[in-house]
Parts: sequence; structure tokens; C-alpha cells
Amino acid sequence: MTEFDLIDLFTRPAPRGGEGVVLGIGDDAAVLRPPRGEDLVATVDAVVESVHFDARFRAADIGWKALAVNLSDLAAMGARPLWALCALGTPRGERPARLAGVGRGLAACARAHEVAIVGGNVSRARELSLTVTLVGAVPRGRALTRAGARPGDLLFVSGRLGEAALGLAEGAPPRARARQRRPRPRLALGLALRGVASACLDVSDGLLQDLGHLCDASGVGARLETARLPLPDARAAARAGRDPLALACGGGEDYELLFSARPDRAVAVAAAAARTRTAVTHIGAVVRGAGVRLLDARGRAHTVRARGHDHLR
Amino acid sequence: MTEFDLIDLFTRPAPRGGEGVVLGIGDDAAVLRPPRGEDLVATVDAVVESVHFDARFRAADIGWKALAVNLSDLAAMGARPLWALCALGTPRGERPARLAGVGRGLAACARAHEVAIVGGNVSRARELSLTVTLVGAVPRGRALTRAGARPGDLLFVSGRLGEAALGLAEGAPPRARARQRRPRPRLALGLALRGVASACLDVSDGLLQDLGHLCDASGVGARLETARLPLPDARAAARAGRDPLALACGGGEDYELLFSARPDRAVAVAAAAARTRTAVTHIGAVVRGAGVRLLDARGRAHTVRARGHDHLR
Repeated sequence: MTEFDLIDLFTRPAPRGGEGVVLGIGDDAAVLRPPRGEDLVATVDAVVESVHFDARFRAADIGWKALAVNLSDLAAMGARPLWALCALGTPRGERPARLAGVGRGLAACARAHEVAIVGGNVSRARELSLTVTLVGAVPRGRALTRAGARPGDLLFVSGRLGEAALGLAEGAPPRARARQRRPRPRLALGLALRGVASACLDVSDGLLQDLGHLCDASGVGARLETARLPLPDARAAARAGRDPLALACGGGEDYELLFSARPDRAVAVAAAAARTRTAVTHIGAVVRGAGVRLLDARGRAHTVRARGHDHLR
Repeated sequence: MTEFDLIDLFTRPAPRGGEGVVLGIGDDAAVLRPPRGEDLVATVDAVVESVHFDARFRAADIGWKALAVNLSDLAAMGARPLWALCALGTPRGERPARLAGVGRGLAACARAHEVAIVGGNVSRARELSLTVTLVGAVPRGRALTRAGARPGDLLFVSGRLGEAALGLAEGAPPRARARQRRPRPRLALGLALRGVASACLDVSDGLLQDLGHLCDASGVGARLETARLPLPDARAAARAGRDPLALACGGGEDYELLFSARPDRAVAVAAAAARTRTAVTHIGAVVRGAGVRLLDARGRAHTVRARGHDHLR
């Protein structure tokens, strides 16, 4: 099988056309027409065998996840996705059926989120990997960033934290396993938060670490109320021998949105959550200073054994 | 060293700002303002240890090459480069100094071609690799593609073919080694060929294979005159035990431009070559039908033992 056969096998199921695609896969480069009056938003992320996925993943899950983690970054910017370019690394002797499966999962995620696959590359490598660059659009000057949080703002998070990390445990419930393998990027919520959130990012490295990033970028501190956190199922966590609070604070790969909003925007936050049918929880507040403090239900300082997720570990 | 330390180490030397960069590295995604009235051009390519580079490459050469091969794709479209996103795969225990060197080579190539590095990602992997996605711009509707060649058009190639492949041989001359490690993308020529060339691509897989792609995309055949080909140095090839013609036809990684133009554009081709100080050689013609025929100096059909370069071999 040549390089060209493999590229074809891998990209065949992908949606290749779409908004702004003048010339798609097959030339030296794609030609793309950016939407008028909008900024572009671009991000790159890779999934690598035995780092981001293992033998328990179906091939299609790998392709889904590689695109979904990038979509989550666009959601955090309040952008809508447009175009993806994908670089597959594949070991000699990898089964063509597995590569085709990765391509099908990528295609399914692309179709579900109206993304055109406009570029592809295949290289030999010692392990399977898929690197996706995703480009989207946002009305000019309206992208959400990490840098706009101000003291007094309220802190919110979407969905339930720690489930994806729980999904790696033996005997994890199907819902947690699905969260790990097929993350659902919060694109609709991200769009609804434009003009509502003061700062936003996606929780990929664990709540505490990502909240630290938001605080650093905004030059503020934060107070988290642990009793408010949307924890993973306590019985499933106990069966896996994991602490729900530690999972929620440091599990990683949640791909939920963590955002701040001024108190007078709380109603708008609730409306955005309702309109997009997304659970959103008020979990704390932005304060002067630096760093994240955790408070328990009685307002006492609290320590959680959670280091945050580091993809290099 | 954490993921964030590594990203910083790797991306620190890079030029992060530039035309259209509203928000660069450091948030969930970059925010980019596309130039008014232009189309975007986007491509992705990876360089992988022991496939695209080996222990003889200096770290900085790896970073240079990863961006240069993408720049060559943009040159072939007649586009000017704007923004790059880079995903580094690195084995546990890789020396930080080597990763910093890769970053410096990437930065040097970016600066030389006025490219801003707007996104970065670092993942664990079993071997060193660098995947670059490059976005550029071209006036609307003026991108060069592979598909415009018509019977009667003349065929041209820039520079000298087969030198990069020769650069892999033991005892290769410094010039050939440099061609292999630090490809010089033909961006100025690509810009000058807009409105002049009828079809264009870059020679990365070897002349015969890439000419085959141009013919397939344009629905035409081609006649190559082997006596016209700009061959690598015969003595250096002989010392390496390689046939110059085979190197020129199938060596690969030349990153020269192969293009067609109507005969009445031959003067414009010469002017573009002179203006950009690029050697351009007339090597054959586009014909009706399909496939590539090689003719020797007496017009007799000719066969070359060259399979073309396949990055999966």
C-alpha cells in the first residue's frame, strides 16, 4: 500500500466540501475563502497511542477524539468550526482496516459538527497518532479568551467533572467510558456565551490547573466552593477506588467549559445554558490576587490531592 | 519538565506576531484576521525521525525542514505564507537542548519567510516528530493548481533535480547535503508565476511521480526530454554510485516547482525566472492523452529506473 493509497483510505469517508472550501484535498494545499467580517480561530492538538488512547479504544473512537479535543478549544473561544487538516502517523504493518476505522470516526465527528476535512498527510511512525489542526470563525473582536476575568465575577463550569478520568478505570460505567472516548465539545454553549462570559477556557488538564491558567491570564485569583462542584457518580468512583473530588479537580480530559461572568450576567448565563440544554453550575468566584483557594461547605480552606493532568506523564 | 515548560522551551525563539495575528500562542486557540479580498491556502506536513531525518541532521535542521516543506506547498499555489501551527512529538528522555534546537531551526525558517508561529502542541511519542500546518494567502481566485495544464503547454522546472536525494549519500557534497537538510522553498518564483503558469506543483515525490500527478489532475499526458533535465553534479553522483538521471527523475524531496505554461507565455516565464533570480529549465511539453513519456536527445523513447519517493517506504 503506497502513501497515496493510505491517504485515500484514511480520508475517503470524510466530508471534504463545505462553507468556504474553494479547493479541498488533492492539490498541494487547500484553497479556502474566509467568511466576510469574521476573525479566524485556529488550534492544533494530537492524540498518540498509549498516551491519549489505548487498545481499549475502538479505531473510530481515536478519530472522533482527535477532532473533538480541537473542537473543544474552538468552543472555548466562542467560535464555530469550519475546516480541519489531519496528519496521520502510522506504524509499518498497521492493519488498513484500523486506519480506515480511524478515518470513519474522524468523518463522523466532522459531519456531526459541520467540519470539512481539507488537508491530509500520512507518515510512517513508530506508533499510531493523529494530529488535527482546526480552523473556525468568530465575529470580529468577539472571541472569548482566558484574559477577561475580573474580581467579583462568578465562576461556572458546564457538565460534570472527572467523568472522563473515571472512564479510564476498570469497570467504569458506560457513560464515563463514553466521556473518555467520545468527548462532546460544548460548541453550542460556547457560541451562546459570546458577550456573556468575561473569560472562558476548556477543562482539558483538570479543573484546578485550568482555573490556574484562567487566573494567570486574567491577573486574578479564584475561590472554588468544593461543595458546589458537579462531581462524578460517587458509587462508580468508589468502585474504582477513586475520590470523586480529586477526580473533579484534577482528572483531566473533561472538555467542559470553565468560564467567568459578571454577577449581573448570571441571568444571561442561565439563559445560555437553558437555550443550549447544557447543565451549567456556579462553582465559585474570581477574587483579587493570584492562585486558587478551595473552600468547603463551611467556608474553611480545603486541600485536594490533585496534580492536574499532564499529557507528558 | 512539564508539558508547559516544554511548549515554552520549544516555541520561545519563534516569531509569534505578524500580519493578521490578533491573539497568538497562549490561549485555547489563536485569533487571526484574514487579509481582505484574499483566499487562504492551507497545508499540513510532518517530519518524523528516521523517516524524514536521521541522526546526521542537526536539531535546527529538523525544525527548518518541517516548516520549509510546507512553505514549498504554498509556493506551488502561488501563495504567500502567514501563520503556522506546530505539533511536536517527543520521546521521554529526549534532551531539552535538542528540542530547543528544533525550535530555533523552526524559528529561523519562520523569520526568513515572515511566518508567525501561532499555535503549538507537545505530546509524548516514541520518536521525535514535528507536524506543521501552514496557512497563507493568495488574491481571490488566483491560486495556482495542478489542474490547468492543456495540450501544447510547455513544461518547466526550477533549480536542479536529484540533489536532495544525492545529499543522503555518504560523502555527498556540502551543497547536496544542504539541499536535503535545509530545503529552500521557491516562494518568490511561485508568486511570480501567478497568471503565467497554467498548472504548478512542487516536486517532493520525484519528478516523474509529481508530473504524473499534474497530468492526472489536468487530464493530459506529458513528454519529457531527458537531455534537457537539470541533473545533479555527475562526478558527485558517480562517487555516490548513483545515476544522475535516475536521481533527477525519482530522487524526491527536491522542493522545486514543476509547472506548465502556454507557449505564448514563455517570455513571461523567463521574466519571472529572471526577476526572482531562479534558474528555470524548459524540460518538455504537455500532450493529449495520459501518462508521461521520456524521450532522449534523438527523440527515442527512454526508460528510467526511478520509482519515485514514497515516504511510507
